[in-house]
Order: sequence, then C-alpha cells, then structure tokens
Amino acid sequence: MSVPSYVGSMKGKDFINTNDFTQEEIHAIIKAAMDLREKYWSRVPTNYLQGKTLFMLFYNRSLRTRNSFEAGMHQLGGHAHFLSPQDVYTPTLPEDMIPYQTEAIADVARVLSRYGDAIAIRIYGDAAKWVIGRGNRVIQEFAKWSTIPVLNMEDDIYHPFQALADMMAIMQVAPKPKGKKFVVSYAYSGGLKPLAVPQSCVLIGTQFGMDVVLAHPPGFELEDHVIKAAKENADRYGGSFTVVNDMKEAFRDADFVYPKAWSPKRFFPPYNSKVDKEGAMEYQNRFKDWICTQELMDLTNKGKYMHCGPADRGQEVVDEVIDNPNYSLYFEQAENRLHVQKAVMSMVMG
Amino acid sequence: MSVPSYVGSMKGKDFINTNDFTQEEIHAIIKAAMDLREKYWSRVPTNYLQGKTLFMLFYNRSLRTRNSFEAGMHQLGGHAHFLSPQDVYTPTLPEDMIPYQTEAIADVARVLSRYGDAIAIRIYGDAAKWVIGRGNRVIQEFAKWSTIPVLNMEDDIYHPFQALADMMAIMQVAPKPKGKKFVVSYAYSGGLKPLAVPQSCVLIGTQFGMDVVLAHPPGFELEDHVIKAAKENADRYGGSFTVVNDMKEAFRDADFVYPKAWSPKRFFPPYNSKVDKEGAMEYQNRFKDWICTQELMDLTNKGKYMHCGPADRGQEVVDEVIDNPNYSLYFEQAENRLHVQKAVMSMVMG
Amino acid sequence: MSVPSYVGSMKGKDFINTNDFTQEEIHAIIKAAMDLREKYWSRVPTNYLQGKTLFMLFYNRSLRTRNSFEAGMHQLGGHAHFLSPQDVYTPTLPEDMIPYQTEAIADVARVLSRYGDAIAIRIYGDAAKWVIGRGNRVIQEFAKWSTIPVLNMEDDIYHPFQALADMMAIMQVAPKPKGKKFVVSYAYSGGLKPLAVPQSCVLIGTQFGMDVVLAHPPGFELEDHVIKAAKENADRYGGSFTVVNDMKEAFRDADFVYPKAWSPKRFFPPYNSKVDKEGAMEYQNRFKDWICTQELMDLTNKGKYMHCGPADRGQEVVDEVIDNPNYSLYFEQAENRLHVQKAVMSMVMG
Repeated sequence: MSVPSYVGSMKGKDFINTNDFTQEEIHAIIKAAMDLREKYWSRVPTNYLQGKTLFMLFYNRSLRTRNSFEAGMHQLGGHAHFLSPQDVYTPTLPEDMIPYQTEAIADVARVLSRYGDAIAIRIYGDAAKWVIGRGNRVIQEFAKWSTIPVLNMEDDIYHPFQALADMMAIMQVAPKPKGKKFVVSYAYSGGLKPLAVPQSCVLIGTQFGMDVVLAHPPGFELEDHVIKAAKENADRYGGSFTVVNDMKEAFRDADFVYPKAWSPKRFFPPYNSKVDKEGAMEYQNRFKDWICTQELMDLTNKGKYMHCGPADRGQEVVDEVIDNPNYSLYFEQAENRLHVQKAVMSMVMG
Repeated sequence: MSVPSYVGSMKGKDFINTNDFTQEEIHAIIKAAMDLREKYWSRVPTNYLQGKTLFMLFYNRSLRTRNSFEAGMHQLGGHAHFLSPQDVYTPTLPEDMIPYQTEAIADVARVLSRYGDAIAIRIYGDAAKWVIGRGNRVIQEFAKWSTIPVLNMEDDIYHPFQALADMMAIMQVAPKPKGKKFVVSYAYSGGLKPLAVPQSCVLIGTQFGMDVVLAHPPGFELEDHVIKAAKENADRYGGSFTVVNDMKEAFRDADFVYPKAWSPKRFFPPYNSKVDKEGAMEYQNRFKDWICTQELMDLTNKGKYMHCGPADRGQEVVDEVIDNPNYSLYFEQAENRLHVQKAVMSMVMG
Repeated sequence: MSVPSYVGSMKGKDFINTNDFTQEEIHAIIKAAMDLREKYWSRVPTNYLQGKTLFMLFYNRSLRTRNSFEAGMHQLGGHAHFLSPQDVYTPTLPEDMIPYQTEAIADVARVLSRYGDAIAIRIYGDAAKWVIGRGNRVIQEFAKWSTIPVLNMEDDIYHPFQALADMMAIMQVAPKPKGKKFVVSYAYSGGLKPLAVPQSCVLIGTQFGMDVVLAHPPGFELEDHVIKAAKENADRYGGSFTVVNDMKEAFRDADFVYPKAWSPKRFFPPYNSKVDKEGAMEYQNRFKDWICTQELMDLTNKGKYMHCGPADRGQEVVDEVIDNPNYSLYFEQAENRLHVQKAVMSMVMG
C-alpha cells in the first residue's frame, strides 16, 4: 500500500476552526478528502492510521459525527473510543469542578495524550451551560494541555468539519466556488440551536471567495468576531459578505442556499446577564415563516439546497425540498463528513 | 488468505426473517457457520470484512447479541458500532417523532448507508411501546430506506439469528433434522416477553421438515400469520406442525424441547385496545406449573434441552436441567450466535 | 513481525491480585511492559492479539483504565468491548438477582467465554453495595465460571494493574527498588474511596523488598489479611513493613511517597453491621491536615510523588506538588497503565 503525501502533512496540528488555516491548507484537505472518497467507493484499502487511537468525547448527542468519525478511523486502520462524559470522570473547566465527579481537563488531556493519537470533542448548549463560548473554551483548554491533536466535533462557536463537508459538497457542483452566491439563512425551529454551523459556513464561504449573503431576522446576528473575520476573508480572497433581513431577497439568484436554525444570542451570556431559554424560544416563535419552501427555491439560480442535518422537517424546510435529489445536497453533505474527517485525521495523526 | 465462496454470496440482502429465505439458503448459512466455527476454534484468520462497519442499534438490553456481533465483526476484520438510542437522535417512525430528540428513520438509514456496510437493530417490548409488530415496522422502515443490508437482532415478531443458532445446535446433534420431534413450549416467567423466539423457532423447525409441536396454555397462541406460515412450511418440506395445550403430552418422545416464556398477545395492541401489562402478568401467573423439570425431561426420547438465554432460572427451568451438560444445549446455542451471525454478515456484507 | 517470548507465557491465567504471582513473574511482566513501551514510543507494530476480544465490564466510572485497556487492545491488534452493566442484563451474584434485570455471573461468564478471549471487571463502592469484599467476590465468581482469563480492573480489595504501573514507575527511577523507602500514606479527601490502591501498593512494595511504611490516622487500618501478607512478603523478600500514624514521620528520608485517600473500613460491612457513609465521611473530615504539601516533600530524600489518579487536588495534594515535573510521577504512572496491561494481556491471552 502506497501512502499518499498528505498523510502526516499537518502532523500534530489541532483542528478547531477552519479560519485558523490558510485557503491553501483547506484546499489541500478537501483534495485529500476527494482522494479518500474515491478510494472508499472503489474499496481501496487506506490503513494510514494502523494501530492509532482517537478519543471521542461527546457531551451532546450525535448521529453523523460519531458514526463518521468511528467508521472513518476503522477505515484508516485505527480505532475510535466513544466516551460519554458520565462514563469517565467528567472533564471540566477549573471553575466548574465538582469533587469526585469531575476531573480537570488539564489532567484528562495529559493522560489521554499518553494512550493515543488525538482527542475529539463535541460540546455546546446545555453541556456548556448555554454560556456562548464556554464550549469553545473547553476545547481550547484541551488543546492547551494535550500533546496530541485536538479536533472540534462542534462547539458553541464553530463546527469546522461540517464547514469542510459543506465546501466539498459545493465543489462537487462548482469546482471553482469563487464568485458563486452562497446564502446562509436563518430558518425557523422551535428548538434551541448553537451558532456554530452558520458561523463556520460564512467563514469558509468567504475563505473561498464566494459571494456570501447572510440572511436572518433582526436579533439573530452572528458574533461580531465572526462577522469581522468573514469580512476580512472577503477582502483577502476576492469575494463579498453582506447581511440582509429578508429570506426572499437573499434567495434570489443564489447558487447555494443553507437555511438553518440558530438561536438569538442576546438571550444568553455573555450577551445577557442570565440564560433565558424561554425568552429565546418565545422570540424565535415569531419567525415561523422563515421556512425553506419550493417557492423560495424557485427564486434561486437553480440553486442547491444545503443543511448539516438533522433538519427539523416542517419547520426549517418542507420535505418536498430536502428530499428532492435534483438539488438537495443533504445526503452528500452528510457523506462528506466521513471523507473530510478522514482527510484531517490522516494529515494531523499520520 | 483464501476467501470461501460463501463470502458475498447474498450480497446486499436484508436478514429480517428466516422464512424470507429458502431452505437451501438457510442450509448454506449454517454450512458457512460451521466452517467459521471450525476456523474460530483453530484460530484460522477470517478477515473477510476488513475495513467494514456494522452499525448496531440497541433499543433493548443485550448480552449475547451485542457481544457476539461485536466480537464477530472484529474476528472478520471489521468493526461494529454500539449505538444506544439516547446517544444518537433516536431513530423514529413518522408517527412517533418528538422534535429535537428524534430523527426520522428515513434520514438515519440514508445517512448510515453512506458511512458503513450494514445496520443491525434490536427493538421490542417497551421500546416498541408494546404494540406487537411496531418493532418489526421500525426494522422494515430501516430496510426501506437503507441502501446497505439491515439485520434483525430481534424484534417483536422474529428473532432470526437465534433461530439459525438453534437449528445449527440441532444439526450438531442430528445432522438431518427432518422427522425429529421438536417441541417449542411455553414456560412460565413473571416477566413480559415478546413472541419473537417461539415464532422464529416454529418457522425454522418446519422449514427443516421437523415434526414441530407447539405447546402452550390457552391464551398464548402465536400470531395467525406465523401459524399459517409454519403449516405451509410443514406441507412444503415434509414435516408436521401441531399445537397442543399440555406440556407433558408435548414432551413425550421429543428429540428437542425448547421451553421458553412469552406473553399472551391478547393484552397488547393490535390484539387489545390498550397495553395491559398488569392483565398479562396476572394471566401469566396462573401458569407457574409450566416449568421444565427433570421429570419432564425423562418423558423425552433422550431429548435435548434448548433455550435462547437468558433463562429465568426457577421459573422457566430448574438449574438441574439447564446445567446438565449431557443434554442441555444452552451454551452451544449461545456460542452458535457468533458463528451464524458471522456467516450471514460474510454473505451479505462481503 | 517476530513475536517476543513473553507472549502467551502465562496463557489462560487470571490476574486478580499481584500477590497471587511470584516476584519473578511480576518482574517478567514489568520487563515485558518496558519492551512494549519502547515499541509504542518507536511505533513498532505489536499485533500479538490479532482478532482477539477483551470484554470490559465497568460497574464504575473510569478514564485511565477504560482508555488504556481499549487503546492497548487496539495496539495489540485486538478489540475491547466497553460494557455498562445497564446495557447488558447486569451480571450478578446469586444473592443479588433481580428477575428480568440481572443475569447470573455463572451464565454471563460462560457465554462470554464462547465469544472472546478475556473478561475484565471493575467493581467497588456503590456498585458493590459498600460491603467490603463483595466486589472481589464478583470477580472471583467470574473467574470460577469463565474458561478465559479474568482481569481485575479494580475491585474493593485490590487494584493489581495500578500496582504494576506504580512499580514500573518506581523502577524507571530506581531499577533495583530493594531497600528504597516507599511510603504509602493516607491523604484527605471528602469522597468515599475503596482500600484497593493502598492495599495493592503495600503488597507490591514488600514483594520487591522495599522498606514500606504505611502511614495513616487511627481508624484507617488496612484489612488484616493484607497486613499479614505484606509482612510475609517483607520477610520473604528482605524488605520491611511498618505502620505509623504520623505523615511527617513517614515522609522523612522517603524515596517514594504515595499519599492517597481511602475510607475507614469500620463504617462498612463486614466490619460494621450496616453501611454508614455519613459516619465515614464525618470521621474522614477530621483529617484534612493529611495533605501532601511542598513542606512534606522537603522532608523526603529527594523523594518522588506518586498517585494513581484522579487526585483530589486541594485535598489529597496541592497543585504545586502534583504538577512538579522534577519529582511527580503522576503522568508516568498513568502512562504505565497502558504498558503493564498490554504486557499482562499479551502474556495471558497470547
């Protein structure tokens, strides 16, 4: 078995936010993912991580992430541990320690670094006490102490592997995404959802020089540091980044639309003095008309429908749209999770 | 390593009910299982599913099933994911969806189909809301949407891998089971138990031309469609199928006896307007004398004792019987689970 | 790949208590662990257990044990199942059976023996109903019925793999431990902790001819049978074993100190008529001054600090001590768990 040159090419690096990497590096990851997809489909063995171990720590539920990481590690010849926080002594920030139930992340990270080859973490929402940024701080704390790569399986700010999978899906349709109109839109859901997906979407879209339009009702603003980074990306990579408050306007002539729920940040710390879930849900409920319908899709430039999954059918999108194989990339995005994760793991763990 | 011809010989097929297959196909599975048993015992490598992934979704507890599937996949060079419904967004039928906690089986099945090679499901009893047939419908829904094989690890109608393991145990004693007397009998337990095991037993027994006697008190009838299929099997394959209400009468001259608890269906939908667990348990409690004792075993034709496990000792059977190595097949049946499952996985996933 | 001679050299043996083995056997294990550590660090493949399965049954939480066993099995080419008692029918002693929720250990052990290659169990504290010795009895019951090796991942009497890892850490500093002063000391924690670690520590220390000093407040005596065995070890192997009630006195001129909490046994059966957790905690709280500080470390002979982890920082030890890389063996001990467990598994499962 010949080992491709990308294996080990980013050895030891953490993967927490796509914007920590250059456009060239992200390109290289997606190129590696395409190679791995080809090999997966044609059943070429890819044992690049033989004997290696990934520790997966899930503070939240997961279907796509858990199964794509675990299957992906096996396909690479390695093995992934599925760890629930309650099965270990819950790894915790210094200020959240509960004696005899938790263990300092500093210690957990250093111990796991002795046993295996990377640590992957998912933490947002209730698991991060709905203090926006606290999930990301948990991951940063792991990265600070770990001597092996730390992978962000979605926190409350970023979902970098989803963004990679999304860009890969875009490039399967438009190999040169530069100049294409990419709409990241709020869509209604009754549930509370983190900002991670839309924030990572606008970052990767602008990093590839796309004309990114962010659409949402008032009150659903993304975080300032993300808006700033998206604008800088647009300037650097020759695309654009605009924000509108009208779903219809945004969809017009779009090449890709990504209607997805998130919750208004001003009901949660640090943007609020307390966690106000009821306030957030009440406010969200005013925007039930932000749903992706066939009429909206008809406004696009034969645009493709995108969603990270699981979609709240009947709230964020109608079945007619998400299940239309002519333009829905829903299952391609899900599949691409497998390939981009295998790419990053091969590069940082190989 | 030379790959046996059975690997991949039923590529892509679901395995939900033994009666979906011809006698020849079931024979071929058991023959493959015997080959795999021989190789397991003599430590011959059997990496026929290298790099392949099985997703195991357990809505119910399991010792034998989980460990035999997971160890079996590893022995075949592959890997099995152990998935609890609460760790993923619980895969759910359309009518049972709960927003933000469940995900449509249609979506789960299509996503997992992108990541791996087969989906195995166990669901009955509380997990299927005690509506008889609802567990089977969950599995059928997975099969409808999945593009990879779906394996039934026990639902509320069938337990096909148990039936295969049982027939393999029978054939270890009687290589030609045709004409042997096989008694599938109710035995008392205070717990609520599905119909799956006795139903799959009478189906596979008749499929092999055995003289199958089903014994149970009044009120413990199997489902009509199973009775009909068992009779058709008996006609087609030259055996017989009779139902009696007397344990002693049934045991007389039996070659194999399988005393096992199940719950009376008329207390549960669709055979009742509501789920009446208390009614079922109260009714069951009238039949504490349906216990497999040495006296009953003495009536048989040096018959073998069988049970799928876990047996309710002191209720279904006395220790003296189940632990008698001269005629108890209890641990052989358990071991055979490993071999028959590896056989089917090799055939449908290879 | 050439297979070292230690692989399979203790084929089929259980590993429940280090004192069940001769000094020579324990030496051989640590020597094998050093070979495996060297190979781990230099990435030499060690597929000595290809296709083999370890069943891990965790009645208690675990970070180090679970991850080091699971990663270790993968590094040896095998696979470990992570089993929670609630996912299987909880394996149970005869007197603790609950119909339809538990399964007799006798049956579980015999079934798992058909599917794989070793069974590892962790059980103490609440999981063993705080009856001291009941956890050990569960493991003995598994060993009685299992036909494959049973490994003790910590019960309420012994923690043999921790003791091996500790002795390996000691030998990394002092290749000939004989005559070195090894202090196993009580240190305060508000939590309830088993006797397993200090008991296994004094046993392995005396088995290697060390001058073992056990230090604790009155009421924290170890079990008589352990004290007796430690004295016999000291006599046989030319070391010494003394008990003192003063932490300072113990630390003076020590080469290795192991300050660690355990709970006073006289509040628990069989040493008490009932489980009295409140009494134990109240009594423990009198000894908050038993904490490992820099001042205490300064009394030693440039002694090394040891702890099995997770340490209760601020109770058992101050951060300044545990995080001082000049003398803290904390993370070495944790890493050694991986190597010694791989050594024992290679020897008994190979």
